[in-house]
Amino acid sequence: MKKHNFSAGPCILPQEVFKKASEAVLDFNGSGLSILEISHRSAAFVDVMEEARALSLELLGLNDKGYKALFLQGGASMQFIMAAFNLMEKKAAYLDTGTWSAKAIKEAKLLGEVEVVASSKDKNYNYIPKDYSIPSDVDYFHCTSNNTIFGTSIQEFKETKVPVVCDMSSDIFSRQLDFSKFDLIYAGAQKNMGPAGATLVVVKEDILGKVSRNIPSMLDYKVHIGKDSMFNTPPVFAIYTSLLNLRWLKEKGGIEAIEKINKKKAELIYSEIDLNPLFKGFANKPDRSNMNATFNLVDDTLKERFDALLKEAGINGLNGHRSVGGYRASMYNALPKKSVGVLVEVMDELERKS
Amino acid sequence: MKKHNFSAGPCILPQEVFKKASEAVLDFNGSGLSILEISHRSAAFVDVMEEARALSLELLGLNDKGYKALFLQGGASMQFIMAAFNLMEKKAAYLDTGTWSAKAIKEAKLLGEVEVVASSKDKNYNYIPKDYSIPSDVDYFHCTSNNTIFGTSIQEFKETKVPVVCDMSSDIFSRQLDFSKFDLIYAGAQKNMGPAGATLVVVKEDILGKVSRNIPSMLDYKVHIGKDSMFNTPPVFAIYTSLLNLRWLKEKGGIEAIEKINKKKAELIYSEIDLNPLFKGFANKPDRSNMNATFNLVDDTLKERFDALLKEAGINGLNGHRSVGGYRASMYNALPKKSVGVLVEVMDELERKS
Repeated sequence: MKKHNFSAGPCILPQEVFKKASEAVLDFNGSGLSILEISHRSAAFVDVMEEARALSLELLGLNDKGYKALFLQGGASMQFIMAAFNLMEKKAAYLDTGTWSAKAIKEAKLLGEVEVVASSKDKNYNYIPKDYSIPSDVDYFHCTSNNTIFGTSIQEFKETKVPVVCDMSSDIFSRQLDFSKFDLIYAGAQKNMGPAGATLVVVKEDILGKVSRNIPSMLDYKVHIGKDSMFNTPPVFAIYTSLLNLRWLKEKGGIEAIEKINKKKAELIYSEIDLNPLFKGFANKPDRSNMNATFNLVDDTLKERFDALLKEAGINGLNGHRSVGGYRASMYNALPKKSVGVLVEVMDELERKS
Repeated sequence: MKKHNFSAGPCILPQEVFKKASEAVLDFNGSGLSILEISHRSAAFVDVMEEARALSLELLGLNDKGYKALFLQGGASMQFIMAAFNLMEKKAAYLDTGTWSAKAIKEAKLLGEVEVVASSKDKNYNYIPKDYSIPSDVDYFHCTSNNTIFGTSIQEFKETKVPVVCDMSSDIFSRQLDFSKFDLIYAGAQKNMGPAGATLVVVKEDILGKVSRNIPSMLDYKVHIGKDSMFNTPPVFAIYTSLLNLRWLKEKGGIEAIEKINKKKAELIYSEIDLNPLFKGFANKPDRSNMNATFNLVDDTLKERFDALLKEAGINGLNGHRSVGGYRASMYNALPKKSVGVLVEVMDELERKS
């Protein structure tokens, strides 16, 4: 039985992506060589890298707007310190909306002063603070667009004249935003983009080169830009698989088309959470994420029965993060609406039998 | 026709590894899920990570000797700065034997004083300097065991009481060494270990925690050790494929057994280089690498004919690095001796027809 995979990341990718990636491990484009054994300097892979970079910008609507796309390593966690290395001269403003924001703040403090403009830690990050302003005397403002663990997302981004840095790891390519309002976007691939092991960085070139420190080469965006994202051996397979996924998204109609489907999936699960008396949502309603729906059983004694029903239905990866508990349905681009339907059915069934 | 792949890295892996990795992309161990979509916190992947870490130490003979193995990201290039972040308090000694040594030196200089104890740059790195001593007043000594680009390798490592750091990217798991003489070993996976995208770090724990700086979390070996190499999402597929490769090596008899085959492959190509008047070797004979054999045509006008013969024989990846020119035969663990035989045949054929 094929599973319904609600994993928070690494997560489901389109079945056709799995199929093509699997084939490439045996024979990449009929070359007689595996994608794992070709040189990253080969014409075939340089084409992959260039198409992946260009397609990322195209899908985000950032062509010809002064941005460069890079495929790096180390995930968002490496970007926490890398962003600060490249942009922090003296002081930066951070919005604290969850575990990952807090980690970004911790790393940035190693290199300068951090002003936390607002935090929702007081309520275990179940909402997005709105009552704050972004100081004008900071080197940049940092936020997290979607909080995977808590199931919240920023619906409206405040206007500011300082550079805006955004960790979009768990919602990039899932919803339409005016991406040109951001100066640095980064995202671990393992949600809406590809397998773990690649990190997309989209940076507006004119914000770089303004700090006085010496930046280690591997942490310097300008070094990576100067080498077309090939300063050293890139994670070839993770980038190729990301490209397959980006092509799939383009064929589907891009972000505009996928956002409509994502909204339908989110409406399906949230209306069940709100109407089924056995469940309660975790996140503040206006801040709910369309990617990660967090919810709990009202009566924890039903857990065993619910978990058994989930297993029976082939539902995988629904456990909530340990800092929230309960359940989390991650519904990234590649998760079929049908899988959400199966989950809602199981929730209904629990109600009928209780 | 299956190619004979002499690529310098990413490079050939065993055919059975390609087959198993390809299958896992469709269905990982009969789980109904792709290896690309499972959670890195799942029991199945935690097992993969633990086996890969344990098997790395076992193959190197470093069990129960105070070492930890980590699978990180960023390749050796990230280790250049990471090693310095963790170990450089004031001054370190470096041996300069090639492009990668020089890059390691450049990064270390950002964090302290670097004493280059010897360099072979005067002869375009075609030999390994031997006439030097390691100062006793440095935080560590850094060397590169095998120089992929130039085809040299260190045959004898000098004794010292300071911690020894070694970049073994291109010869780890290929030859027997007393690995307990090293305190920090690192290697990009994409030669003898697996696909690009994972980096093995083997570190003796008691050398850590001695510098006074604050180390960014992602660059701190102690942080990664404390989280069992799962501080953040690891490159799942690259680690799984590395594990398949490490298992293959163990089944083959480990480093002792593979070293014998590697020696035979190296003898085969080097005797052809030395006996065939059309070719000349690049590296100093006593310093020749068993992994990368570098050589040139004596008469460059034969290049077109030789290249045509190589292509006809299905030989891939034999071009030398641009800083050396000519040819480079990379003969990592998974390259069959038969492939070296085919190459030698082509070199013979060129001689016969010239």
